[in-house]
Amino acid sequence: MINVGIIGATGYVGIEIVRLLQNHPEINISTVVSQNFVGKKISDVYPNLRNVFDMECEELDIDKISDKADIFVTALPHGVSKEVIPKLVKKNKRIVDHSGDFRYKRVEVYEQWYNTKHGMPELLEISVYGLPELHREAIKSAQIVGNPGCYPTCSILGIAPLISNKLIDKNNIIIDAASGVSGAGRSSDLSYSFCECTENYKAYKVATHRHTSEIEQELSLLAGEDIFVSFTPHLAPMKRGMLSTIYANLTCEKSASELIELYREYYKNDCFVRILDEGILPETKHVAGSNYIDIGIVVDKRLNRVIVLSAIDNLGKGAAGQAVQVLNIMCGLPEHTGLLTPGLYL
Amino acid sequence: MINVGIIGATGYVGIEIVRLLQNHPEINISTVVSQNFVGKKISDVYPNLRNVFDMECEELDIDKISDKADIFVTALPHGVSKEVIPKLVKKNKRIVDHSGDFRYKRVEVYEQWYNTKHGMPELLEISVYGLPELHREAIKSAQIVGNPGCYPTCSILGIAPLISNKLIDKNNIIIDAASGVSGAGRSSDLSYSFCECTENYKAYKVATHRHTSEIEQELSLLAGEDIFVSFTPHLAPMKRGMLSTIYANLTCEKSASELIELYREYYKNDCFVRILDEGILPETKHVAGSNYIDIGIVVDKRLNRVIVLSAIDNLGKGAAGQAVQVLNIMCGLPEHTGLLTPGLYL
Amino acid sequence: MINVGIIGATGYVGIEIVRLLQNHPEINISTVVSQNFVGKKISDVYPNLRNVFDMECEELDIDKISDKADIFVTALPHGVSKEVIPKLVKKNKRIVDHSGDFRYKRVEVYEQWYNTKHGMPELLEISVYGLPELHREAIKSAQIVGNPGCYPTCSILGIAPLISNKLIDKNNIIIDAASGVSGAGRSSDLSYSFCECTENYKAYKVATHRHTSEIEQELSLLAGEDIFVSFTPHLAPMKRGMLSTIYANLTCEKSASELIELYREYYKNDCFVRILDEGILPETKHVAGSNYIDIGIVVDKRLNRVIVLSAIDNLGKGAAGQAVQVLNIMCGLPEHTGLLTPGLYL
Amino acid sequence: MINVGIIGATGYVGIEIVRLLQNHPEINISTVVSQNFVGKKISDVYPNLRNVFDMECEELDIDKISDKADIFVTALPHGVSKEVIPKLVKKNKRIVDHSGDFRYKRVEVYEQWYNTKHGMPELLEISVYGLPELHREAIKSAQIVGNPGCYPTCSILGIAPLISNKLIDKNNIIIDAASGVSGAGRSSDLSYSFCECTENYKAYKVATHRHTSEIEQELSLLAGEDIFVSFTPHLAPMKRGMLSTIYANLTCEKSASELIELYREYYKNDCFVRILDEGILPETKHVAGSNYIDIGIVVDKRLNRVIVLSAIDNLGKGAAGQAVQVLNIMCGLPEHTGLLTPGLYL
Repeated sequence: MINVGIIGATGYVGIEIVRLLQNHPEINISTVVSQNFVGKKISDVYPNLRNVFDMECEELDIDKISDKADIFVTALPHGVSKEVIPKLVKKNKRIVDHSGDFRYKRVEVYEQWYNTKHGMPELLEISVYGLPELHREAIKSAQIVGNPGCYPTCSILGIAPLISNKLIDKNNIIIDAASGVSGAGRSSDLSYSFCECTENYKAYKVATHRHTSEIEQELSLLAGEDIFVSFTPHLAPMKRGMLSTIYANLTCEKSASELIELYREYYKNDCFVRILDEGILPETKHVAGSNYIDIGIVVDKRLNRVIVLSAIDNLGKGAAGQAVQVLNIMCGLPEHTGLLTPGLYL
Repeated sequence: MINVGIIGATGYVGIEIVRLLQNHPEINISTVVSQNFVGKKISDVYPNLRNVFDMECEELDIDKISDKADIFVTALPHGVSKEVIPKLVKKNKRIVDHSGDFRYKRVEVYEQWYNTKHGMPELLEISVYGLPELHREAIKSAQIVGNPGCYPTCSILGIAPLISNKLIDKNNIIIDAASGVSGAGRSSDLSYSFCECTENYKAYKVATHRHTSEIEQELSLLAGEDIFVSFTPHLAPMKRGMLSTIYANLTCEKSASELIELYREYYKNDCFVRILDEGILPETKHVAGSNYIDIGIVVDKRLNRVIVLSAIDNLGKGAAGQAVQVLNIMCGLPEHTGLLTPGLYL
Repeated sequence: MINVGIIGATGYVGIEIVRLLQNHPEINISTVVSQNFVGKKISDVYPNLRNVFDMECEELDIDKISDKADIFVTALPHGVSKEVIPKLVKKNKRIVDHSGDFRYKRVEVYEQWYNTKHGMPELLEISVYGLPELHREAIKSAQIVGNPGCYPTCSILGIAPLISNKLIDKNNIIIDAASGVSGAGRSSDLSYSFCECTENYKAYKVATHRHTSEIEQELSLLAGEDIFVSFTPHLAPMKRGMLSTIYANLTCEKSASELIELYREYYKNDCFVRILDEGILPETKHVAGSNYIDIGIVVDKRLNRVIVLSAIDNLGKGAAGQAVQVLNIMCGLPEHTGLLTPGLYL
Repeated sequence: MINVGIIGATGYVGIEIVRLLQNHPEINISTVVSQNFVGKKISDVYPNLRNVFDMECEELDIDKISDKADIFVTALPHGVSKEVIPKLVKKNKRIVDHSGDFRYKRVEVYEQWYNTKHGMPELLEISVYGLPELHREAIKSAQIVGNPGCYPTCSILGIAPLISNKLIDKNNIIIDAASGVSGAGRSSDLSYSFCECTENYKAYKVATHRHTSEIEQELSLLAGEDIFVSFTPHLAPMKRGMLSTIYANLTCEKSASELIELYREYYKNDCFVRILDEGILPETKHVAGSNYIDIGIVVDKRLNRVIVLSAIDNLGKGAAGQAVQVLNIMCGLPEHTGLLTPGLYL
């Protein structure tokens, strides 16, 4: 058994990682850290876990916890990471981090979009962008993995085959996406209260959302040239689920079925990517609760434009599921270990 | 008092028109027709109306009902209209129709997108597309008004000022929209059941939705040249509300505040169009239950692209509210009569 | 026009009163007070009211505002009332208050259930419990009206005719009720966040909810002897709406239709009470958005037990609608003025 | 591996059994039958199962399918069972049935509450009521198990220890319960459509719901005398989850903590029953997606009345989870095999 510690275990991403790992056949949760609930059982905070996982939350004291695990998952509020990660690195721990801090190749891009100094730029060199479908090899031996954002995971995987195969005009890529409310985390902010969210749909951070830069970095890497995209996130009145609707102008004539073939070839080694048959579109409920990404492809022949629809669970493939997938890769385990559970549908 | 008859009064659009008109100071509902509920009180079908509006549903017998009103609102299943409208026309009745039949200038466009023969092409000449903000004058004296679709209302009003002022590239207009489930009508189709819809978000009819042609017709009229758009509808897990997110490339440099000014000028005589201050974005719950359309404008300077967000209530400004607005215009009443109620917010 | 000031206008009850009164033909909102939003427009906080009601929020300064109105509605957090009400009384203002402070005849009952000293016990003598169906006469001339709680309104009206007619055993009255989340007010408490509330149903404050004492007071008054009840509130995943399911053992044999007759007689002068036909049960969506209470009656002959179901909108008849009804009575207006709007259904 | 066939696999209960069993280490799904989807893959109907469980649906032809399994789970519309079960019995198959047909000891009770002739009364003798916590021994060797209804499971387990220990007055037992919409099955009935269910809460079948008789049968067996209860089901706007709020008058003085002890003792061998600590109440989201039942106990000392709150997932412990639990018992497997997954919480 591999011992893993979870720092920030009682946030929505943290607890989803706990839920997945408590059932993992090869990974053992050896410590859970939550500053707000020190001394309380995890299952007192999330009573669905009563009798299932009752470990007590520990304080965030690196000296005390670092011996307990070889790999740490950090799911911390922005700003706290830089107090924690360097110490773990110094103790030779491997880390899967959920902040934006280790998702960038170039510190300037981070600092521009996050509008803050990067607290530990020297660590970028030993960090890897944790999208297994694109960076599996690098993840295997990485000391730090920056787990991708939910929108970037959904969007990059939706469009990567088109970029890699140079099938689209790089100048008019539009990504319109919607997320469930859990994407905002365990938040007591009024704007995420039930009465404010239910029966409501809205866009937010239009043209300014940080995930834009993550998407552009990865697409540019694939293209070998700078790619800029319009990215618009929306909030939908549901807990889990994310859908990206991606528009791009084809630079050649391709039918939907040809593109579907090409996508299937591109992802042939990726067990969590399901390319749908022609005429079938993804729905968030088909992936909610799972680590799958469903991708559907439509070609609008009138306009020679492709519309790609990709759906994930923002807490699954968009966060906790992907973290477990990354952990499996880091540990040399089969990538799907502990992750093949389908969503509930209902 | 002007007498109005409502044919198809127990569908979701029909009943919303009933709800609005029963409180209208100048219009009297003189008959309600519903084939499924002949002899039953409206308030037995929609018990929110108990003691408020208890009129009995009549059978669809034109001879019987035609004397009862001078104007008829028809909200009928596709296909039934062509049995009804010509008879009403022959009896010199004026009509506000909710099918797609009277929304088109060119019968070929209708027949192509609806994939059916048009049942009464000769009536297109005496019909007007019922979007007051664009066709107010023609509506005043029209015999038949084709009440616009919900998506076209939301999208056309969102982008019209940009097209009219020739500020955008006509070739890369993307309209991504989401609707509440009531847009599908009073449907017992499994796919609109609670368990299938809640906690789900999906696109549908991608690149093939009929409303595309309505949007293109009106934008082309405004532009004086053919305009084609990508239009993608989505279903969001809520009852009411619609948001269009519209992307277009600016052909000149304009700031958001300049565009906001321009929109305010464009809609200065339109009391239901609310152009939001810079930095404010529309939300469906701000318009749900009302006849308002809220429009927010963002300029992405990096890409010189404008993103317009427009929100309506699909049953309000997108259907029943607009029908009442149209009735007011047809009857020479102040356009806002009976329509200034704000939404409930909660 | 009668000038009314609303103190605490940006809470969920306050804003619902604003929404109702801005459309009231005889009452004018002359000032809105909100400590959190001084200087901001009401419609910046609740954008559904843009262009409809844009009054600026004032500070809570009794000297400044008291001249502006003859009647004040207070919808304040618990504890603040006692700073405000006595000053208004001294200035001879009439008050409709939404705290628990003026709902009790006996200060000991208040102090026991609220577990606090009553701040202004001397004012109880000039206050009236604002349930129009039971205390209409007293409300007419009251200086202070304690607007009833939502659960008591729904429950007392559901069972009053049985108590008054001495048809039930007073010892086994069970009231099981469910409320929408807006009952908790405009709260940023985590437990009312979307992700915690949606897809969840739970009881809370079992056997200890304060509203129990309000219900018992009024039923005891009607019975002429002490009545104790079991009252269990539940939280249902919806915004608005409340349903009480009330169980009592009949002390004689009565059929449902006999009881329905008796209820109709009892409430014959009460325009907001709708007694449903036999076999018809109330649903919260039939009253949501309105000031109606729907009551359905079932007799279980096997057990000679009556089950009464009563539904209101917790923000309507359960709070803001009732406040407007009370204002109408206090001002000598027809009781239904500005209140006959049905709910939206959808 | 034990081969199990599922007849009626594409209903909501059927598919939940498929979801649970496809991951079961000792049971193999050897055939899935669905009349509506013969020849289609299960995962075409429920796309969450794509790549996870793609078996094709077979026709309901007993001769064809009976060789494929030793145990059959039947989850069929009412009325179909009697065509199927006797044939399976004749072929010596064991059966876990989800209709009401095998839940009764006395055929008259069934016929009275279901208002129909029982189609196979002779089979009642070889059938067992499948509530493991009460009938574990009999289930082990039963040929037919009638899987209990969801409301009875939740209610009987909630009150059984009080009845068995003769702590309550048998004459005033009130069970007030609410269920998520999936309890109605995969239904295209208008009343279960999204727009009709969301933002609505209502009681239904008051004093006449069939599950009343199931509850009374089992409580009477425990009591050794006839027990009658009031049972009122409600529909709450959520997919999954069920809460029973049970009221009974104590015949002696007991504190909540004493009753909690007694419940824990009563269920000490039942791994799916979680008795909550004093002051903690169950919530449906804590059990949704799992096979647990959470039970909380409150004593109202004022009235010497106990209020028990019990929560299950109507599709889990209330249907499919319990079916798997029963299968485990029938097959001599540890009762929790394949069932220890906690719910998702989010």
